Amino acid sequence: MRLPGVRRLLEGLLFHSRIMRPDDANIAGNVHGGTILKMIEEAGAIISTRHCNSQAGDKCVAALARVERTDFLSPMCIGEVGHVSAEISYTSRHSVEVQVNVMAENILTGAKRVTNRAALWYVPLSLANVGRITEVPPIQYEKPEQEEEGKKRYENQKLERFETKYRNDEYIAPVVNPGVTMKLMDEVAGIVAARHCKTNIVTASVDAINFHRKIQKGCIITVSGRMTFTSNKSMEIEVFVDADTLVGDTQERYRAVSAFFTYVSLNKDAKPLPVPQLVLETEEEKKRFEEGKGRYLQTKAKRQMSAQSLTQQ
Amino acid sequence: MRLPGVRRLLEGLLFHSRIMRPDDANIAGNVHGGTILKMIEEAGAIISTRHCNSQAGDKCVAALARVERTDFLSPMCIGEVGHVSAEISYTSRHSVEVQVNVMAENILTGAKRVTNRAALWYVPLSLANVGRITEVPPIQYEKPEQEEEGKKRYENQKLERFETKYRNDEYIAPVVNPGVTMKLMDEVAGIVAARHCKTNIVTASVDAINFHRKIQKGCIITVSGRMTFTSNKSMEIEVFVDADTLVGDTQERYRAVSAFFTYVSLNKDAKPLPVPQLVLETEEEKKRFEEGKGRYLQTKAKRQMSAQSLTQQ
Amino acid sequence: MRLPGVRRLLEGLLFHSRIMRPDDANIAGNVHGGTILKMIEEAGAIISTRHCNSQAGDKCVAALARVERTDFLSPMCIGEVGHVSAEISYTSRHSVEVQVNVMAENILTGAKRVTNRAALWYVPLSLANVGRITEVPPIQYEKPEQEEEGKKRYENQKLERFETKYRNDEYIAPVVNPGVTMKLMDEVAGIVAARHCKTNIVTASVDAINFHRKIQKGCIITVSGRMTFTSNKSMEIEVFVDADTLVGDTQERYRAVSAFFTYVSLNKDAKPLPVPQLVLETEEEKKRFEEGKGRYLQTKAKRQMSAQSLTQQ
Repeated sequence: MRLPGVRRLLEGLLFHSRIMRPDDANIAGNVHGGTILKMIEEAGAIISTRHCNSQAGDKCVAALARVERTDFLSPMCIGEVGHVSAEISYTSRHSVEVQVNVMAENILTGAKRVTNRAALWYVPLSLANVGRITEVPPIQYEKPEQEEEGKKRYENQKLERFETKYRNDEYIAPVVNPGVTMKLMDEVAGIVAARHCKTNIVTASVDAINFHRKIQKGCIITVSGRMTFTSNKSMEIEVFVDADTLVGDTQERYRAVSAFFTYVSLNKDAKPLPVPQLVLETEEEKKRFEEGKGRYLQTKAKRQMSAQSLTQQ
Repeated sequence: MRLPGVRRLLEGLLFHSRIMRPDDANIAGNVHGGTILKMIEEAGAIISTRHCNSQAGDKCVAALARVERTDFLSPMCIGEVGHVSAEISYTSRHSVEVQVNVMAENILTGAKRVTNRAALWYVPLSLANVGRITEVPPIQYEKPEQEEEGKKRYENQKLERFETKYRNDEYIAPVVNPGVTMKLMDEVAGIVAARHCKTNIVTASVDAINFHRKIQKGCIITVSGRMTFTSNKSMEIEVFVDADTLVGDTQERYRAVSAFFTYVSLNKDAKPLPVPQLVLETEEEKKRFEEGKGRYLQTKAKRQMSAQSLTQQ
Repeated sequence: MRLPGVRRLLEGLLFHSRIMRPDDANIAGNVHGGTILKMIEEAGAIISTRHCNSQAGDKCVAALARVERTDFLSPMCIGEVGHVSAEISYTSRHSVEVQVNVMAENILTGAKRVTNRAALWYVPLSLANVGRITEVPPIQYEKPEQEEEGKKRYENQKLERFETKYRNDEYIAPVVNPGVTMKLMDEVAGIVAARHCKTNIVTASVDAINFHRKIQKGCIITVSGRMTFTSNKSMEIEVFVDADTLVGDTQERYRAVSAFFTYVSLNKDAKPLPVPQLVLETEEEKKRFEEGKGRYLQTKAKRQMSAQSLTQQ
């Protein structure tokens, strides 16, 4: 009996497939965005840790530094099979970019559709020397443009990461389990959205998430959310993760992660519904609403541009 | 950005990879055999359900009818990545054989090893007509021998399945979630083994498991185990699953599944230890011990034969 | 007891909210009492550990010593959001009392109702010196009566704890994860109740639970239950947790926890149904029934008294 496909498994690709269960989804049967984010991160962590240890040298663990903005193109449903595939798409000296694709397959009808495309950045942390970042073995590109484009994405994320206000000056150090943290963040955002519009809601997109400071074992994390902006058919929710080091040498509370989640409200045929507009009272709220509007318009403009460029090809 | 390898995903193969977590394992860090069995069954259920719906006709769900005897060649550890790959290896008119391979990968060192090879039989149950078994689309074989050999395995499992004492005459109908049930069975067997030898124990093999009767939603299941046989370095534990239909038209308790698990005791270097011999008191116990000895000697003889045939090739 | 206000979030208050999922509930959609107990205990453990480490000195973990009698005022349902809030209500030199409130929110309608109020006692155990109980920083009371009443509750629980038969003379030492243990206890009680009346059943209350002896990592626990008493519309089930230390210096089996759970049977409109009366055969069973009747009448009397005192205010 031959080993089916085992060799193909081990050449820079990773697959993960599983049936979506009732507790992966909300009561309308739509799989939580957080469940998908967790699956994406697990695949990314495996493939980048494997790659970073593929040469002789310090053993290391790939730690999540950043998730690029992710769109949820179509909600997945209970009973469908979610396929996650991950591939390393760029390496700098100290970081790895992983491209992850998520597909939903209805195994009864055979219908398949892409539900997500995500890009994640990992940094290899030495297991022997705490805090030391190890070197990443370079990958081979099929075409020179791939390296060029990767470099651009690398420079861009580096810039954005340094602009965010909660950055850590020393080094990027991720949370113990970033997948679980993102799942919690999505859950909080979902509760805020459901309270606001009292209908079936699903994650439409997640802003880039930067992991600034490590959440250590034994920490207590508090995840909180507030709605910042509403368009006609979407809601933006800002989510914060704060960590308390209860039992350590130094007790402190710090902001570990923050991100913007966009939710839409769906009717029974999975079509977007209008959402109630946010009532603004304080100056702070008005300011946050304007900032949210800015992000909304910017994303809309980018989408139109990329749609145009696709049409012109 | 191209979709990495998505097409390769959809040609009769299925991959599933995940990192083994502390709660997949016992306190010595060895992943429970039950965790592996559950992963194997999930992959088998996905690939066979997909195949059985690949032609026009009644939509159906592939229900587990039988797991062939499975050896655990090497225990998996926390932090390793488990890779499950599944492939359809034979189809009869009403059943599908799935071959599943499990590999452990240490992503820090790159070392890989096969930990399990399993064969599972599924039967497609119609979703529209409860109890109806639908037809299985035939697969293409690369070589004619493959079909011949598959047919032999098919006849053999059919025979064995009809010989077992708890069979249901009407039709094969599996448990709601057979993977979870097998995980519970392994857990009970592990407790019986640990109580007996009070050391670190791991699953060495599982006898063929036949799923005779459906365990319905809302049933209470009782999983019980008893040690039946000890050799110098192994223990055989018989495990029963009984189901109670509490809230239904007819209240009854019935034997849903039973199987033999073989456990070994390991020292700190993962070498097998001698196990205390079973003390036999009743005639029943002596009879069961002799039957267990028969299974043990038969398995040993088969292994020697297959080792010889490998040497001669 | 008032519901603690949102502003004081970070000064001795803790909030936790999450959506109830299908696997939190039984097939009728009612969330298991055990799921609620686990959420209550997690909030209690966090807030008391945080408080006990708020002053310089030995770092410690707050260990659950006792849960006061808890009523389940109304069952929670799948899709509702459960809100747990916890507040420290009394401190003695070596123990902390935490008041926990649980509310159910239907986020679609906005309706909210209190489902539980619980009081838990924690004892801070030093991390550096195993077995040493550290000192608890005193809290500030808004009114002097609060301290007086807290002291009465403290004396009362101390007395009751010392009266129970399985107490450990040396020191209070909780189970590794008391929340998980309580969830298992509720599950066993629920099976006993469902077998007896074969209908949809829900937890109505839990007797005070005392944690006498630690359940160590690697222990095998056996949770068993027996019905002790039935009134017209309720069933009392006694649940035992026994621990086996399999792999240690001393092998023994000991009673770790025991408690009485009261269950009611509900019809489709969530109204209580009459329950079949317990058939008593042995003298032991008759004795236990009479003791159960005593507890039942005592609780009933207490409830009537507190209802009267509320009317008179």
